[in-house]
This record gives sequence, C-alpha cells and structure tokens, in this order.
Amino acid sequence: MKLNFSLRLRVFNLNCWDIPYLSKHRADRMKRLGDFLNLENFDLALLEEVWSEQDFQYLRQRLSLTYPDAHYFRSGMIGSGLCVFSKHPIQEIFQHVYSLNGYPYMFHHGDWFCGKAVGLLVLHLSGLVLNAYVTHLHAEYSRQKDIYFAHRVAQAWELAQFIHHTSKNADVVLLCGDLNMHPKDLGCCLLKEWTGLHDAFVEAEDFKGSDDGCTMVPKNCYVSQQDLGPFPSGIRIDYVLYKAVSGFHICCETLKATTGCDPHSGKPFSDHEALMATLYVKHSPPQEDPCPAHGPPEKSDLISVLREARTELGLGIAKARWWAAFSGYVIIWGLSLLVLLCVLAAGEEAREVAIILCTPSVGLVLVAGAVYLFHKQETKGLCQAQAEMLHVLTRETETQDRGSEPHLAHCLQQEEDRA
Amino acid sequence: MKLNFSLRLRVFNLNCWDIPYLSKHRADRMKRLGDFLNLENFDLALLEEVWSEQDFQYLRQRLSLTYPDAHYFRSGMIGSGLCVFSKHPIQEIFQHVYSLNGYPYMFHHGDWFCGKAVGLLVLHLSGLVLNAYVTHLHAEYSRQKDIYFAHRVAQAWELAQFIHHTSKNADVVLLCGDLNMHPKDLGCCLLKEWTGLHDAFVEAEDFKGSDDGCTMVPKNCYVSQQDLGPFPSGIRIDYVLYKAVSGFHICCETLKATTGCDPHSGKPFSDHEALMATLYVKHSPPQEDPCPAHGPPEKSDLISVLREARTELGLGIAKARWWAAFSGYVIIWGLSLLVLLCVLAAGEEAREVAIILCTPSVGLVLVAGAVYLFHKQETKGLCQAQAEMLHVLTRETETQDRGSEPHLAHCLQQEEDRA
Repeated sequence: MKLNFSLRLRVFNLNCWDIPYLSKHRADRMKRLGDFLNLENFDLALLEEVWSEQDFQYLRQRLSLTYPDAHYFRSGMIGSGLCVFSKHPIQEIFQHVYSLNGYPYMFHHGDWFCGKAVGLLVLHLSGLVLNAYVTHLHAEYSRQKDIYFAHRVAQAWELAQFIHHTSKNADVVLLCGDLNMHPKDLGCCLLKEWTGLHDAFVEAEDFKGSDDGCTMVPKNCYVSQQDLGPFPSGIRIDYVLYKAVSGFHICCETLKATTGCDPHSGKPFSDHEALMATLYVKHSPPQEDPCPAHGPPEKSDLISVLREARTELGLGIAKARWWAAFSGYVIIWGLSLLVLLCVLAAGEEAREVAIILCTPSVGLVLVAGAVYLFHKQETKGLCQAQAEMLHVLTRETETQDRGSEPHLAHCLQQEEDRA
Repeated sequence: MKLNFSLRLRVFNLNCWDIPYLSKHRADRMKRLGDFLNLENFDLALLEEVWSEQDFQYLRQRLSLTYPDAHYFRSGMIGSGLCVFSKHPIQEIFQHVYSLNGYPYMFHHGDWFCGKAVGLLVLHLSGLVLNAYVTHLHAEYSRQKDIYFAHRVAQAWELAQFIHHTSKNADVVLLCGDLNMHPKDLGCCLLKEWTGLHDAFVEAEDFKGSDDGCTMVPKNCYVSQQDLGPFPSGIRIDYVLYKAVSGFHICCETLKATTGCDPHSGKPFSDHEALMATLYVKHSPPQEDPCPAHGPPEKSDLISVLREARTELGLGIAKARWWAAFSGYVIIWGLSLLVLLCVLAAGEEAREVAIILCTPSVGLVLVAGAVYLFHKQETKGLCQAQAEMLHVLTRETETQDRGSEPHLAHCLQQEEDRA
C-alpha cells in the first residue's frame, strides 16, 4: 500500500422500523429510503429492523445499480432485521447470534423471537481491509425497571468479543447499529473500552443534527413521549463507531443525523433518525499519529467497567437462578395438583370440576417447564459472559498492576474458583 | 521471533461421556482421567461431554498444579460440555453457540438442550500465537435416516466460518473435538476445505491406535454394536486438526489413540477413544516449506464441496418449510377443534366428552405452535448458512474461473436473486 494512501468512506445507518402489519406507512417510507440511498450514493448503507424480507428484496432491486452487493442476515424465528447495501464488493460475510435475547414468554416485547445478532462484512477497498459490523441489541422497554439490563450488558460483551476476535487482521473497523443504550450506559462503555472503538458523534469535526446527537426525537411524528420516557428532548441510542489499527489514522469529517424528517420530502424515514458519516482514512505510521486521543484506551477504565459489568451480571445470575428455582417449585406443585385432580376425576363427587381444572393444570406445568428451561439457559449464558470478563480482568490486572496491586490478579482467580 | 524457532506441542482430546445419572462409572473414570493427565503432562487437554460442572471442578482441582489454567464453556440449558486444561496461560477466551442444534421436541436425543458450541482459546507460546478450538457437533443417531444431517452440515459450516474469521492473526490453528462425522462426510470435507486444516491421522508420521484411526471401537466395553451401526469394526468421529500460516511449518510427529482401554489400568476412559498428538512447529519462510502438501487446498475441491453442501441445505430448507406449513395447518385445525369443543361443552348432550377432550386439544395447539416456531427458526438458520456458502462460491468462482467459466459467477448471483 502506498505511503500517501487515503480514502473517504461515506456510511449510512438507520433503524428502519419496518414491522409488517404494525409500523405505519411502510411502503412509502421504504420507497423514499430507496430513492434517498440511490441519490446519496453512500459506500455502505447498514440497516436494522428490516423485519420483512420482501422489503429487503424490494430495496435490493431498487438499489441494484448504485449498490451492486447486498446481504440480508437471517436468524431466529422472525429474522435479525439486519441488512446491508454496498457500493463495493463484499468479500466475506459472517453472523453471530447472541446467546441471550430476552424471554420467549414476553410475547408482547417479541425480541426473543427475532434472533438478535451481529453481522460482519469484510471489504477490500484499494488494498485496505475494512471490517464492517451491523447490529441491533435488545430493546429497553423501561428505563426505571429494565428487566433486560443484564441481557443487554451480556449482548454488548458478546458484540465486543466478536469484534475483538474477528477484526485482528482488519485495517479499519466500523460498527453501526441500534445499540438500545445511551452513550454513558454500562454496556456502551464496556463495548468501547474493550474494542477501542470511537464514537463518531463525539469525534466528528462537523456535526449536524438534533441536540446531543439524539436519534429518537420528539419532533419525529412516529415517536411518542412514552417512547422517550424520562428524556422528553430525545435519546441517543443509534451509533456509528470506528477505529483504525496501527499504520492507519481515521477521523470523522462530518456526521449528519436527520431531525425527525428526511432531508428531501420532510417526512421521516422511520421512528429513529438516520446517521450519515464521512470517515477519512489515511496511512499513518504509529509514531506519526496526529491524534493522540486515538491511542489505546486507558486500562484502568476497562478494569473499572469490567468490574461493574461483572457485578451487574452477578445480579442477573441471582435473578435467573431465583426464577429457575421458583418455576421448579411450580412444576412440582402443578404435577401434585394434576395427580390430585386425576384422583378426584376417578371419584363421583367433584368429577366435573376436576376435569375442568385439568386443562389449566397441564398448561401451568408446561409454562413452568418452559420458564425453568429458559432461566437455566439464561444462567449459563450470563455465567459464560461473566467468566470471560473475569478472565480479561485477571489478565489486564496482571499486566497493569504488577507494581501497585501485586495480589489483585491472584485474588480475582480465587474469586473465580469460589464462583 | 528467532529464525530457528521451533516448538513441540502435546495435545490430548477426549469425548468424556460424562452424563450425570446416565453414564457408567463416572467417578472412577474421572479419577483415572485426572491421574493420567497429571502423569502425561500435556500442553493442552481438550475435553467434550463434560456435562457435569462439578466434575469439571473436580478435575480442575486435581489438575491445578500440572495445568494451572482451565475453562469450562457454558451454554444452552445443560451446557456445552466443553472444557479445557492448559499448562500455559490462556490469553483469551471466546465462545460461539451454533444457530442450529436439533429440535426441542426430540427429548430423547437431548442435543437441543445442550447448546452445542465451539470454544476458542488464544495462547502465546514463546511469541507464537496459537488459536485452539474445541467443539462437539450434533450426534448422528441413524446413519441410514439421519434427520439432523442438514443441521450438522450447517454446524460444520459455522465452525469453519468461526475459525476462518477468528484465526486471521494466529500463527498456528488447532481444532480438537467430536465432530460426529466420518472423515469423508460432507461436513468434514467442507470444514477442511474452507479452513485448510489438516487431519492429524492422515498426516501423522507415526500412528498408534485402532485400525483406520477409529475413535469408537467394539473393543471398548461401553460401546454397543448399535452405537457403531453399519460399521462393526469401528468409526472415526473424533479429530485433531491443525494448520500453520505462512512463515511457519507444522507437522504431526506422533498420534496415539487409545484402543478401548486406558494405557495404564486397562479400563476405558470413556465410550470414545482419547487422541494424543505431538505436533512440531518450526519457523519456515513460505518458499522453504518442506511439505508441498501443506499449501492452500485446491479451489476446485472447495467449489465442489460448497455446491454439494448448498444442495443438502436446500433439501433441509424444503423439509423445514414443509414442517412449518404442516404445523401451521395443525394449529388452525386444533383451534377449530377447540371452538367446536367449547360449543359442545356449552350444550348438554356431549358435555363431559367435550370437556375431557379440551386438555389434549390445548396441548396439540401448544405443541404445534412450538413446532411451527422452531421450524421457522430452522429455515432462517439454514438459509443464512446457504447464503454465506453461495457468497463464498461466487467469490471463489470469480477468481478461479475467469477464463474457463466466465458466466458462472453471474449465474450463481442470479440463482441467489431467485432464492
């Protein structure tokens, strides 16, 4: 690669809110999105919540000349909702489905049925290896009482680990998506600290959009005050994150976010705002990196966020174990009830009542069985994430604190042994 | 790294058949395994089917002096059964759970409840980066009528993709595990062709073990003729696979397999045979690689195996869609029956019969609902694997057949569009 190599990369990200039968004006919004993407001619367009494969095929056909390569990531019962359109040939594709993604009995939230995942695309741009990731994490339905908090932290960790392990040969790493986390949220910090990714909103030389870079704003006609909860002026949960490895320098020249309406027709594309980033990559030997802020993140921050995440996962594990134990008792109680009802049904006195009660009893045992199994799985998933974190923590502490805290790594190992 | 760098790596692999309440002589076998591993002092011991975390903790404690680092991979409702003991510090750990792993309603097979996965360990050995993988794929319960064939092919693909994408910075790649596939099986060929891994049994300079390297043999007292099916003399389904990237040369000096008994006491460790490989890694500039067989695999073989795998996944998708449609009809039929029973229960004539039939009807609808959802998920998972394969096929064909088959890549793209 030439020493004066440079590259400008224009990226588009949007959570499309494309839910068949449920979201409003889908056909019109998809048509306008297609027109906009064709007109703007980005290098990469990364989309989330495209739950209808027909809509992906519609966009694919509409965008085939401007974006010759495309991929739709399929997982779960409904799908991952993730897709990508690329002006450049996609060299490689891979998908990692998150181990934890809510509960199957929370029908009304539906995340479990979607198979939330992270999609990886490898592109070769003038000799530069770009690993682009697109993802969508579990939604936050209540800020005050977030029953999915531990799952989202575990997903953020799995996402960070997936990026960490699959990008070792990449020159530039790009992550776009709806993380369903505010910038200071634990999962968001964990992701940034472990991968070293930079937030385009924070780093952009020129930002145009709503205050604080919000990607769900009250001005958007599809957004209700209920969606924003305790943040009436808007929330920032969609991101463009990036980093370059040694030998390259990357910066965000411009970041634009729509402000409740598309830039041409004035109507919104979705209930989320679109992000449009122009990234500038250039060859830069490590010693000449013009931006010291782009160095490796502080290890003490990583250690601190890992400790906090482990504590939160610990609370999640305790809750999952409580539910597994509770549903185990319900199964025993339900089976005992069924035996009693069978005895009563064999007699004469309460025969009809016993037969009528059989159906709800069988249902109770089946539901409790499902709840038991899913909380056992939840426990395993959270324990795995917690163990991986402890492992990183032990290694980081060993390398960092040899002088000041000589026994900390040993203490952490003892803690793991006890767990 | 020095030019005369070399390293000898002693690796142990065993499917431990450690199933609480079900497998025989667990405690004795675990004790003997611990003693043997301590005595032999391997660099790495990779184990599968350690379904009891207590047994892992027992081994961990017993092996703590010889193998100071260890990890147990947790996933699914029961666990992944995978664990590792290492003489050297494990630098990094990651886990990928397979998207497809049988059906939840096949209780008696139980694979779905296990959360089959691939575990990754990164080790730094005298400056050499070793990526070691341990895995266990879905069991084959019937060679003649294998209903899990498409799932195992999809798992082999996911495993190959995971290794391909996470080992780009590794100097040496090692995969150990119970693949539940014979050496010439489609999934096994797919894995070897896409990753470029070499089979220790084929490459070993010195092999000691049963004929054809079998890892389930009739001489083992825990193996029945039913387990071996149409192969009464034994089957080879456990593997040590490896490769070195450019700049290194690797060869298998010795491979030993137990032959139905452990080398010291004469009793078997498990119903599978243990594999013990001595690998020799040395620095070797690409042009000086002494073994031309260790070059990149033939692209035509990869293309041929990818085409076959896509066809098999296509059959799996058709079957999954049929089951989803069938269970959809059963749900409609069951709901109609429930409405009819409610009407009858409201009357006088067949009231009791109607009430009695309510329970099985509700059960029918619930079971059909679960079957429908799981086959929808199966379809998505198989489609994703098929699409990833098609993508590789298109790229490989583009680069290889530019002269001889100029339109093949274009035809494949058209095929994807139609799909």
